[in-house]
Amino acid sequence: MFIDGLECGVYDREVFEELRAGNLAAIVNTVSFWEDAGETLDRLGMWRDLIRENADLVTMARTAADIEAAHAENKTAIVMGSQGSELLDGRLRYVELFHDLGLRVMQLTYNNQNAIGGSCYEEVDSGLARFGKEVVREMNAVGMLVDLSHVGNKTGLDAVEWSQRPVAITHANPSSVYPHPRNKPDDLLRALAERGGVLGLATYRNINGDWIESVDRWCELVKRAVDLIGVDHVGIGTDLSRKSGLTELNWMRMGRWTRTPNFGAGSAANPGKAKPVDWMADTTGFPVLADALGRNGFTADEASAIMGGNWLRLYRTVFGG
Amino acid sequence: MFIDGLECGVYDREVFEELRAGNLAAIVNTVSFWEDAGETLDRLGMWRDLIRENADLVTMARTAADIEAAHAENKTAIVMGSQGSELLDGRLRYVELFHDLGLRVMQLTYNNQNAIGGSCYEEVDSGLARFGKEVVREMNAVGMLVDLSHVGNKTGLDAVEWSQRPVAITHANPSSVYPHPRNKPDDLLRALAERGGVLGLATYRNINGDWIESVDRWCELVKRAVDLIGVDHVGIGTDLSRKSGLTELNWMRMGRWTRTPNFGAGSAANPGKAKPVDWMADTTGFPVLADALGRNGFTADEASAIMGGNWLRLYRTVFGG
Repeated sequence: MFIDGLECGVYDREVFEELRAGNLAAIVNTVSFWEDAGETLDRLGMWRDLIRENADLVTMARTAADIEAAHAENKTAIVMGSQGSELLDGRLRYVELFHDLGLRVMQLTYNNQNAIGGSCYEEVDSGLARFGKEVVREMNAVGMLVDLSHVGNKTGLDAVEWSQRPVAITHANPSSVYPHPRNKPDDLLRALAERGGVLGLATYRNINGDWIESVDRWCELVKRAVDLIGVDHVGIGTDLSRKSGLTELNWMRMGRWTRTPNFGAGSAANPGKAKPVDWMADTTGFPVLADALGRNGFTADEASAIMGGNWLRLYRTVFGG
Repeated sequence: MFIDGLECGVYDREVFEELRAGNLAAIVNTVSFWEDAGETLDRLGMWRDLIRENADLVTMARTAADIEAAHAENKTAIVMGSQGSELLDGRLRYVELFHDLGLRVMQLTYNNQNAIGGSCYEEVDSGLARFGKEVVREMNAVGMLVDLSHVGNKTGLDAVEWSQRPVAITHANPSSVYPHPRNKPDDLLRALAERGGVLGLATYRNINGDWIESVDRWCELVKRAVDLIGVDHVGIGTDLSRKSGLTELNWMRMGRWTRTPNFGAGSAANPGKAKPVDWMADTTGFPVLADALGRNGFTADEASAIMGGNWLRLYRTVFGG
């Protein structure tokens, strides 16, 4: 069963057909980056319509069982996720309300510090702040997965320790394999794994360096991650952004917080959207990757855990019934 | 000319009459604590009505000249202020819009970290964050005074250095005189003064200890502050909360960020609203304090600078024409 732990594109019927062609049982989408509560309601409403209009291909998942049911019916389950927590509008009680509306994964910060904690792009990371402690425990209580991908390393470690349920890094790589502010140090990854969490390895070009050049080379990166934290704690979170363009890129990187060009995981020398990866230009790359893991020394069980089994177990643990 | 650098009460005609009885030329009010943009617009609208209904006593000030004009007409000028920056809803461009609506003083954080920086009550203070640098420069550009009263010490020092105009601590005391998380260390106060800023000494009981017991004793605290940073950099910011009750206290302390009782500058042993100060129960204490400064060794010019002149100079520098 294939699960993509994080995507952030613009979706239409063609992209949903790619999900089916890749035999994806589930993906986590990005409902919000900087969107506030009202804007996130708009986005959730748009997603309800989009899923209804393509009900022969996709369905919305609130539980791990929903994903299994979708898979049995040859559909792809869409798990509602957010890459920021601005949707809370500072209200602790909105965690429960957004959970009721289907939100199952929430990244504590996107690229900037907020009331919850620090981001990987801030000069100084505060760690998990007063509101952050409240929000993590509320997410634990209602069954929403804590995502630490763009979060700062101190806040990440604090959240791993403070959370009463396993947490996720849905889309990042070990910085000991490829150094980048968006990638994660070994101590954080080990702490995450020790508490039952999952790291989703990302095929996003800007945080991969040369490892991304071929699928067989990338299997080496997977192997390094597995050696570091164990095969039960590694998954895939492509960070695929199918059909997103300059408008979406500027929204992600600059939101409404700056007028000055900001390059996120890119740079002034590499300002545009990252070039698609040959072997993972869309989710039809999933079977390609699964085959590559097989010929690069992973057993069928190991490949299955990495390609989706670990996410499903984590979702079952965190989302509840 | 008397100016109160920060108040946070509930206002009605009786409180405005107290402002006149104290011969206040101006006060800075608290339009917002945790209120977001829409809620702050509601509050600004309410203030417009309230001022219109009491136009014989008060007027709204956008400039230092407005304050001088109000004083000449025996009215008290109300300067619109905020104790939080949640009113920005994360939008850099809202700084200009709220300035257009009259907002002239904005505290970067209230009691919790936000996207701008750290608070005095957080375990770790990040310093001025990415959005914080943008916001301070935007406040500089439009003419809005940066207030660091509830802000963390590292963020405070960063903001003093990053700001291109003098900044304020509208309502706090030196922590070398009375240690409390809400009070400020000497290095921060010195940096503030070196760059032309003003510290508003607060008569809020919880951050004063025994110094508050008599007006003559409190003049000693004023003297200590003047010795530390110079008579041109000390003003008064009472933090008076006339007519606010449990609803307002809970809003200030807990907002919507926690369900758990939180005591702000109080404590579990001292959970309620602080007992009013005998000699500064309302702004009729201003002439009492001015007299006391006179009999405690301050010259008339010094007392005048402390009681309002320093604020007026700072407003003239920062608010512009």
